[in-house]
Amino acid sequence: MESCRILNIIISTQDHEDVGEDHGGLTLIGQFSLGLFYYIKRGIKCMCRELTQWEKAVEFHGHECPGLAIGYKACEAAIKKLGIRFSADEEIVCVTENDACGVDTVQVITGCTFGKGNLLYKGTGKMAFSFFNCSNGQSLRMIVKPLNEEMDRRQRQEYLLNSPAEELFNFSKPSFELPEKARLFTTVICENCGEGAPEHKVRINDGKKVCLDCFMDYSRGW
Amino acid sequence: MESCRILNIIISTQDHEDVGEDHGGLTLIGQFSLGLFYYIKRGIKCMCRELTQWEKAVEFHGHECPGLAIGYKACEAAIKKLGIRFSADEEIVCVTENDACGVDTVQVITGCTFGKGNLLYKGTGKMAFSFFNCSNGQSLRMIVKPLNEEMDRRQRQEYLLNSPAEELFNFSKPSFELPEKARLFTTVICENCGEGAPEHKVRINDGKKVCLDCFMDYSRGW
Repeated sequence: MESCRILNIIISTQDHEDVGEDHGGLTLIGQFSLGLFYYIKRGIKCMCRELTQWEKAVEFHGHECPGLAIGYKACEAAIKKLGIRFSADEEIVCVTENDACGVDTVQVITGCTFGKGNLLYKGTGKMAFSFFNCSNGQSLRMIVKPLNEEMDRRQRQEYLLNSPAEELFNFSKPSFELPEKARLFTTVICENCGEGAPEHKVRINDGKKVCLDCFMDYSRGW
Repeated sequence: MESCRILNIIISTQDHEDVGEDHGGLTLIGQFSLGLFYYIKRGIKCMCRELTQWEKAVEFHGHECPGLAIGYKACEAAIKKLGIRFSADEEIVCVTENDACGVDTVQVITGCTFGKGNLLYKGTGKMAFSFFNCSNGQSLRMIVKPLNEEMDRRQRQEYLLNSPAEELFNFSKPSFELPEKARLFTTVICENCGEGAPEHKVRINDGKKVCLDCFMDYSRGW
């Protein structure tokens, strides 16, 4: 991606619109070559550009759909209203209240990912996203307003992508706090299966330290 | 990304190594232009190439780290041993037993993402990933072998990236089944806050249908 960006900068130092200008001072070879250069440059401009944020989300998700569009508009609003940028570490945290398609857009565009631990799942099932800017304490929750059910899938996606965020979401302050940051735990080798697990996941069976796969839990229904 | 791929295909139809060949049949203008073309083409080849899978994972995750390398090697092994490809829908399912950095590689490379519902979290905390190929029923679980603790972060990353999968992982058949595929539920508007939630998340308070945020749960500790 970065490489495409560099190329765009290089080739945009000259505008291809000037192809038709008078290059009388150049030899025939020079003029011909310049023409060829601009021809190739124009081709590159079409083919070697950086993907848009939407295209990046589609590529990551594997297909486009209305759910992805909801996430896209949520990111757009969060970026605008909180002034956030892609979170290379844990500067930004997103709490998603659903596990639907839009979360993939959030991961790609804001850098709030499952693997970094700055994407948290609060399972109310609502089409709501809250963003927390850890560097300045600002936060914002947004929830999708009810959608017109009569639109088909394609119409809904286009409507979502082309509508202002204020038409699509209700905005508020999140009513909840973030949990503590992700912690690292010492690995304990299960004395039954020999696999390693973090110590807070380890239990005791017959005096042995065991993992959750090997742990025989005890309950009489209460 | 796709655009770069197209460009690579186009420019690789001719190898730039033939720049020095005899083009005696061409005019001087033709030869000069051809040289210029190859010169530009060589530049493009450097600047406008597709990111490697590792670079894609780093871009998505925001930084590189040993955890990301574990996920990378797990994907590499899954692709080789199960013959899987990027899952544009739910053809491939990954069950991760941890929420660490490597899961981000899994999302990028295999298309098993949180938002598509084909990334499932089984919270034993183990550095284990299981891949299920839903089209042919094949599956594979791999768990990281204990690592040499004496390596620093950079050494560990390089060791992981450059070691054969058999040295890094133990392979087995998953001992668990996949849950049912993700279902869609009718949205119910909470009669307290007015926000929509899927009906399986809705409860009853004083005869009203309410969401989990508004639901006042009742427990006396049992």
